[in-house]
Amino acid sequence: MSSRLVSRAADYSGWYQQLVREADLAEHSEVKGCMVIKPYGFAIWEHMRDALDRMFKETGHVNAYFPLFIPKSYLSREASHVEGFAKECAVVTHYRLKNSPDGSGVIVDPEAKLAEELIVRPTSETIIWSTYRNWIQSYRDLPLLINQWANVVRWEMRTRLFLRTTEFLWQEGHTAHATAEEAVEETRRMLDVYTRFAEDYMAMPVLRGVKTANERFAGAVDTYCIEALMQDGKALQAGTSHFLGQNFAKAFDVKFLNKENKEEYVWATSWGVSTRLMGALIMTHGDDSGLIVPPRLAPIQVVLVPIYKKEEELNRLREIARGIADQCRAQGISCKIDDDDSKRPGWKFAEYEMKGVPLRLALGPRDVEANTIEVFRRDTQTKESRPLDTIAQQLPALLDDIQRSLYQIALDRRTANTHEANSWDEFKSLISERGGFVLAHWDGTSETEQRIKEETKATIRCIPLDAPAESGCCILTGQPSERRVVFAEAY
Amino acid sequence: MSSRLVSRAADYSGWYQQLVREADLAEHSEVKGCMVIKPYGFAIWEHMRDALDRMFKETGHVNAYFPLFIPKSYLSREASHVEGFAKECAVVTHYRLKNSPDGSGVIVDPEAKLAEELIVRPTSETIIWSTYRNWIQSYRDLPLLINQWANVVRWEMRTRLFLRTTEFLWQEGHTAHATAEEAVEETRRMLDVYTRFAEDYMAMPVLRGVKTANERFAGAVDTYCIEALMQDGKALQAGTSHFLGQNFAKAFDVKFLNKENKEEYVWATSWGVSTRLMGALIMTHGDDSGLIVPPRLAPIQVVLVPIYKKEEELNRLREIARGIADQCRAQGISCKIDDDDSKRPGWKFAEYEMKGVPLRLALGPRDVEANTIEVFRRDTQTKESRPLDTIAQQLPALLDDIQRSLYQIALDRRTANTHEANSWDEFKSLISERGGFVLAHWDGTSETEQRIKEETKATIRCIPLDAPAESGCCILTGQPSERRVVFAEAY
Repeated sequence: MSSRLVSRAADYSGWYQQLVREADLAEHSEVKGCMVIKPYGFAIWEHMRDALDRMFKETGHVNAYFPLFIPKSYLSREASHVEGFAKECAVVTHYRLKNSPDGSGVIVDPEAKLAEELIVRPTSETIIWSTYRNWIQSYRDLPLLINQWANVVRWEMRTRLFLRTTEFLWQEGHTAHATAEEAVEETRRMLDVYTRFAEDYMAMPVLRGVKTANERFAGAVDTYCIEALMQDGKALQAGTSHFLGQNFAKAFDVKFLNKENKEEYVWATSWGVSTRLMGALIMTHGDDSGLIVPPRLAPIQVVLVPIYKKEEELNRLREIARGIADQCRAQGISCKIDDDDSKRPGWKFAEYEMKGVPLRLALGPRDVEANTIEVFRRDTQTKESRPLDTIAQQLPALLDDIQRSLYQIALDRRTANTHEANSWDEFKSLISERGGFVLAHWDGTSETEQRIKEETKATIRCIPLDAPAESGCCILTGQPSERRVVFAEAY
Repeated sequence: MSSRLVSRAADYSGWYQQLVREADLAEHSEVKGCMVIKPYGFAIWEHMRDALDRMFKETGHVNAYFPLFIPKSYLSREASHVEGFAKECAVVTHYRLKNSPDGSGVIVDPEAKLAEELIVRPTSETIIWSTYRNWIQSYRDLPLLINQWANVVRWEMRTRLFLRTTEFLWQEGHTAHATAEEAVEETRRMLDVYTRFAEDYMAMPVLRGVKTANERFAGAVDTYCIEALMQDGKALQAGTSHFLGQNFAKAFDVKFLNKENKEEYVWATSWGVSTRLMGALIMTHGDDSGLIVPPRLAPIQVVLVPIYKKEEELNRLREIARGIADQCRAQGISCKIDDDDSKRPGWKFAEYEMKGVPLRLALGPRDVEANTIEVFRRDTQTKESRPLDTIAQQLPALLDDIQRSLYQIALDRRTANTHEANSWDEFKSLISERGGFVLAHWDGTSETEQRIKEETKATIRCIPLDAPAESGCCILTGQPSERRVVFAEAY
């Protein structure tokens, strides 16, 4: 436990903010709602991005880049889409500044007003589908499997670093298909990719499901999602994959000639994850000493701190440290030697604990004599002495074990915080007193969902994909239901 | 030569536009001035980005991310900076849309006007230095070596794909130092990185130099640059590295305590290259048959086309092709097998020539019998038959040879198009009739530079770093000069 952080138990939200600052991940910028992602935080995001990008390419996708700006009229083409985004749009109205007549600075030049305002993209369906119209003529042009890494802007009044910011970074896949079946298959495939990424890289178990109409993406026929449970019992939507039907093809008149030479509208999907995943990572694994980064996403997997009193001791230790670092590199492990002599070992230990470096090695002259090295595991906060001469070879198994163990702990926590509710009273007390995922029957109507939300703050996170059929009665209305859905209070 | 392109000799600018379209690199979007970078073009940019990113990291830099938006007042803090950028700023004035009262669509909500307008970043010195103020207190916090990959917007009235667009992608390094010497050293180091990238990856020779005051970055003390010569005899500025002195530190009040415990303003650099490099690549190596991508940047280095009549032939050829592709992969060579049977070999050949794939292998049943394979080099447009069984091992040397040869041809072309002018008449006729780089004496004044530009369209591309001292007289005014500078008409 670090004196730099309030404990999670005392103030979870304060803990989160302090951790983001103390671990040097991000900070609020002077531009309202926008964040600065600091180098260490960005390095973790780069690891996420690279792993996802590889997975996208392995599933046949290519990257491209579409404009930042969207003409205002494009947003309006798809009715529910504009309804969903109009209230949070950054609008560009002018394209020039000029010196103010009173010499006090620059002002917007009223002569440089745009004929049509431009929206800073909140998401790119409209600009991309207006482009696809020229790219798609026949079934031979399909499928089109394109992804974009980009910044997007959604004006937010209340922001939290990584979780909800006016500008954020994300990827958005936009695919075009000849049949509904193929598009649904793509939607599911990308949900699988997100699931594997969340579980295998982030060590974060997720529920997979479909959103109800209330929580659906503006313009989608179906929104699939992965939902994770944070340590405070709240759910976090970690990724979404949308089956868009022919909505955007119709809005932008994108038709193709099928094999029978008939004109049809194209079928679409879109899917995205964002820097919000950084928030999910922090709240899944962080503890009262700071962040814990799963080894597969860690910018520094191993840090080696020489412990010495005299300069000649340092020289000897540095030599051994470099040998270990070289062996790490050869195994694809990132190892940092911290021999900065302006900082004391204790300060360094606290710093790397705060930053969540999975393994710390400490090496002093007596270790060298005894052929030992001290190994500290960030996840369990345990120290042990291990043979020095083979330490590099021991690291891959240790890192694997940390990765596995972080997942298992998160999974066990989720299991312990997932409950069935079979009555309205039970439901209310679970939500208000224990939090977590609550599995309950629901009558399938938006009205009931809305009432439950108003009375308890809980929303339906998803209708799980792999839930067994089970007849029951809606916890609120008593109407018949065929399966349980997942409720939780959410970020 | 391709029937899909006008020849360079007939219409260089038409050739460029057609090549960008036919090679599927980019297109104009429906948003004025903004481009869509298509998947194949983006794949080349990804290779550029990855190579540069590695070089930045090897020289000690880390990536971070700063806001897209800059408060209007920030731009004004540095006088020459705002002077340089005010005329081309996209300005965000509102943050919400609403339904129009007449039901005809959405309009900007007048209630949602920002108290202070936000500028979409044309470059990030101001927002970054306002942030650095909180990051830098003492000499121990220096140097700060940060890079950002981002989109930027500069409103352009006349745009050309990659060369000049309203939105473009780039990287911008922003470093902070304790001394002027160290900052100048960094400025030069990054110029070296850009030079190595241009020459070793892009196979594009560059001149290295310093800009005159007229051509300096708005807010810089010195702007270093690399300048390349295109095939039409025009110069293209391919990268810039700025020594910013203490200008931005003063504008944003960024001071540090030095080792003597005295307060000083911080010294700064910034440096950037952009998607403009795609234009440079095209115009350095492209020919009348299309693009030529240097092997080190090629998304597809080798394409293998099976030539067959019967299905069973294809099966056998495919098996051999896969063996070759596997061996390529093991050597780190990207190899695509194109066995799409809806397209004829001739069509494929033309397509990969247009896209500039460095090597094409064609394999038919008779080749297999004879243990041969046809190898086509895109750069020389020559075909030869080579032993099939060892073809994969021959590829690295062939690709290296293409990379080297492309550089040599570009260097020879530059040499042939670089001339000294020793009189005003000679200068004018060189610029108007031959183009290329013209080395001439200049009296060092902005007035003379401006007059030369007005009379000939030529500008001083740079004062070369490695030019020998040579006394002479200014070609226009006859005033004394100590070295020749480089003139050219420029993109």
